[in-house]
Amino acid sequence: MVTNTNTSVDRDAVLPSWRDGPAKQAIVSFVSAVTSQGSATFVPPGQRIAVFDNDGTLWCEQPLQAQVFFLIDRVKELASKDPTLKDRQPYKALLEQDFKTLPGLGKQALFELSFATHAGMPEEAFEPIARGWLAGAKHPKFGRLFKDCTYRPQIELLEYLRQHGFGTHIVSGGGVDFIRAFAEEAYGIPREYVVGSSVKTRFEFHDGRAVVTKLAELDSFDDHESKPENISLHIGRRPLLAFGNSDGDLPMLRYAKTGTGARLALLLHHDDADREFAYDREFALSPLAEALDKADEYGITVVSMKRDWSRVFV
Amino acid sequence: MVTNTNTSVDRDAVLPSWRDGPAKQAIVSFVSAVTSQGSATFVPPGQRIAVFDNDGTLWCEQPLQAQVFFLIDRVKELASKDPTLKDRQPYKALLEQDFKTLPGLGKQALFELSFATHAGMPEEAFEPIARGWLAGAKHPKFGRLFKDCTYRPQIELLEYLRQHGFGTHIVSGGGVDFIRAFAEEAYGIPREYVVGSSVKTRFEFHDGRAVVTKLAELDSFDDHESKPENISLHIGRRPLLAFGNSDGDLPMLRYAKTGTGARLALLLHHDDADREFAYDREFALSPLAEALDKADEYGITVVSMKRDWSRVFV
Repeated sequence: MVTNTNTSVDRDAVLPSWRDGPAKQAIVSFVSAVTSQGSATFVPPGQRIAVFDNDGTLWCEQPLQAQVFFLIDRVKELASKDPTLKDRQPYKALLEQDFKTLPGLGKQALFELSFATHAGMPEEAFEPIARGWLAGAKHPKFGRLFKDCTYRPQIELLEYLRQHGFGTHIVSGGGVDFIRAFAEEAYGIPREYVVGSSVKTRFEFHDGRAVVTKLAELDSFDDHESKPENISLHIGRRPLLAFGNSDGDLPMLRYAKTGTGARLALLLHHDDADREFAYDREFALSPLAEALDKADEYGITVVSMKRDWSRVFV
Repeated sequence: MVTNTNTSVDRDAVLPSWRDGPAKQAIVSFVSAVTSQGSATFVPPGQRIAVFDNDGTLWCEQPLQAQVFFLIDRVKELASKDPTLKDRQPYKALLEQDFKTLPGLGKQALFELSFATHAGMPEEAFEPIARGWLAGAKHPKFGRLFKDCTYRPQIELLEYLRQHGFGTHIVSGGGVDFIRAFAEEAYGIPREYVVGSSVKTRFEFHDGRAVVTKLAELDSFDDHESKPENISLHIGRRPLLAFGNSDGDLPMLRYAKTGTGARLALLLHHDDADREFAYDREFALSPLAEALDKADEYGITVVSMKRDWSRVFV
């Protein structure tokens, strides 16, 4: 039972899985700056936009993004009907879970392959497939469901921001439909607040019912410069806060940070091999180099998983 | 079923600018069906999506859409620097406000021309131009500001839907940035809930500041089949309710209406020459024909401006 109201207790009450330090202080100071009535940096609630990358920022992306494991399982299904896939690349590497070959294919190529496995499918048929997979698929290292490999400190941060009048959006290189299948349950982020990579679609009628069908053609690969461009298209407002973990997030971080008034750009550094993974520039699918090297110059606050988080997973 | 002897009084309390009749009854019954706990047609609040066309549905689109008048004024500015425009089409027709020639150019061509006048401009530079125009530009027939040519019954309906847990979105053929410049103030609809036609953009740095610049190339002309396709991309959920006024809205209306459970597709018929305008299939920029002719077959509820609205403008 807490009987003592001092500042350390107050700080513990917010963001309890964030250890006290520069990163947590930067967050709390920023939120205070934009929410304090009468402050020169006050921003009205409807204009408080926060954007988060997903893979590696809100949940684990190692040894590969969950959607690549989803793709592997989809390709297994295809291979059960067409065994010749076992000897052809990139299917061979996927089926053998060859973690040395797969990253070399590139994130966009893997996601395009993932999209291709669903071409011709009405949008509403994809959702149960993704949800079914997420209900049972487990992470190879942690043995827990992928959907439970979300980060508790980030879920606390999302909720903290919403409590302070922020709209919290995902802006991810991952497939928008895949993320929408779990974002509300996992993060409290509704479907219309998810921006991701997407395929072109076609409106058509199936037996008198209007459907939107997914095509095999890429519409937007939502990474690097496409992130701020898609924020402009989907949200229509420069974010006050952006949180990422790779160079693919750097344009979004700088877009947020170079706006006027109080701004916060946060970069998660995976430096915790014991509790999660330690990696940055060597991860071919989503390297972190420039954003880390130039964090000071760009005004980006680096969050150390090892130092700043008292707990990692939900 | 609840029987209430005071239903007529209750009906007057909601949607006061809607006259009692089949259209108002359809709206109230539909909202009751999806919001009544325990009902077979109940839908949880976060899943209640309503989409509205803008021009001709939420505000007046005659004799031309407001954005075309905005374009005319932008071209006047250009012509003051380059007088040769006065003799070249389509600028000549625009500068002379030639309401016979302009519709023949087509809505997409006019909007593309409107986009072209802003190519190379950072997104945040467009907003003050549009807001400045909207602050002073008046409708040629009504003499009131264009932004006051919004329909009071629709603003009541938007608010009524939000009070019942709906997310209310605009899905318009008009330019997304133009609509975002007034949608929050006029309709209570935030920027991220506006889908419209858009141009491609480019992320770049101006003097160290990250900006998203509008290009001259069309990204999406959000009309006809593109409306449901963009709803799928931006909102990610089939709407329960769709409201339009032209054949350009028909795919969106049928997308909403052919979903499972309680659905409502509404079509505004401009049949009120005294208070607004009377037109349908002859309006070249946005004709209404199939949606009206086949409303019964498609299960679309036709709203007569003359019969169903006791008041038109705000």
